[in-house]
Amino acid sequence: MLDEGKIAAFEAGIKLGALFHQFVGMPVSMSTKKSAEHAIEQSVKNQPYVEDVLVRIDEEKLRKACNNPFGYASLSGEMLYARVKIRYGNAIVVAELKYSEDKKYPEMRLVEEEE
Amino acid sequence: MLDEGKIAAFEAGIKLGALFHQFVGMPVSMSTKKSAEHAIEQSVKNQPYVEDVLVRIDEEKLRKACNNPFGYASLSGEMLYARVKIRYGNAIVVAELKYSEDKKYPEMRLVEEEE
Amino acid sequence: MLDEGKIAAFEAGIKLGALFHQFVGMPVSMSTKKSAEHAIEQSVKNQPYVEDVLVRIDEEKLRKACNNPFGYASLSGEMLYARVKIRYGNAIVVAELKYSEDKKYPEMRLVEEEE
Amino acid sequence: MLDEGKIAAFEAGIKLGALFHQFVGMPVSMSTKKSAEHAIEQSVKNQPYVEDVLVRIDEEKLRKACNNPFGYASLSGEMLYARVKIRYGNAIVVAELKYSEDKKYPEMRLVEEEE
Repeated sequence: MLDEGKIAAFEAGIKLGALFHQFVGMPVSMSTKKSAEHAIEQSVKNQPYVEDVLVRIDEEKLRKACNNPFGYASLSGEMLYARVKIRYGNAIVVAELKYSEDKKYPEMRLVEEEE
Repeated sequence: MLDEGKIAAFEAGIKLGALFHQFVGMPVSMSTKKSAEHAIEQSVKNQPYVEDVLVRIDEEKLRKACNNPFGYASLSGEMLYARVKIRYGNAIVVAELKYSEDKKYPEMRLVEEEE
Repeated sequence: MLDEGKIAAFEAGIKLGALFHQFVGMPVSMSTKKSAEHAIEQSVKNQPYVEDVLVRIDEEKLRKACNNPFGYASLSGEMLYARVKIRYGNAIVVAELKYSEDKKYPEMRLVEEEE
Repeated sequence: MLDEGKIAAFEAGIKLGALFHQFVGMPVSMSTKKSAEHAIEQSVKNQPYVEDVLVRIDEEKLRKACNNPFGYASLSGEMLYARVKIRYGNAIVVAELKYSEDKKYPEMRLVEEEE
């Protein structure tokens, strides 16, 4: 019933939900983009069952958002990409957070492993 | 491969991860406990595939945490309980956030449906 | 040196900074707008030296942001207005969070008392 | 009326309130402590009028909090220290977030410049 694949999918969901709601709002600029991506990745790696994680802030969107008198922006769902690989027992799942321009929505979904 | 049960489990994980990391840190007191629980529930219900959600802040732990000169506390994982019921297609999953006193850890897990 | 007016201004800054970074990202919809505003107000009122607080989510901007397949949005700085009144000793200050369309920035500033 | 010292104090409050409520809840471990401190500092430096910022996570408290099966903890007010130096016009203020063991409260206060 609670097979390993299902638990791995649950764990992947936790990681993306956590990441989004922990870090959205964080002040970020072109010069701190890399340090922010790295710290978010490190933070996610602390959590159980995480095999791998990649976090990227969209450079174009960040630059545009930073076009204000103070030169920084609040991290938003529009500019945030993340990919996590979770292993639970023998099950592996990969999940992605990616802003959908069509749906105007930061979409989280399970993706097929692609090696 | 991506069966409905797995997607439902993924969605349940998103909701618990989101809830925890959005609201931990929120100032809460004995007199705003109910309004906080209600607002968190309403917030989670906005999200897709949520059939039901219950949020409770532990009264004993909150009272203890509020025992400072200002009479309120930051919402913490120790005092937070949540239960979500997710429907995706024909699949239903129930998941819980509950602080484990044994593990000293705010545990999130899939639970068997108990009707 | 640390006169009461300065401390009151410091406390007002704390409240607006806290409010913004605690609640930005929160899932909100047209039907939970009121419960969200109320809960944020209640949460701020828990904090020391708060005489009054008003929180409003811009209806037009929220409606627009909710125009996606799921009918809700993450609370953002663009749609958030807040006003706090702080009393410290004999000093009163009022401060505001208001999105500046000119600056494309969620501006926080001390405002003159207006009674 | 709105003298520079008062505005500088207001800005200092914003930074500490923001920092606390943005990053409390963040997963952190002994091995990511430094990267977390650095990322929080970088994030605060993005904001206006910040001359300097120092963020430290208490090593003893973090180690204790990480004593669970997963070896990490949610960043909490108990373990977080921060100090910001704000310049607005000719005014400089220094403010501190420091957990008060007496009051059981993460206290934020203006401190006298000590060079």
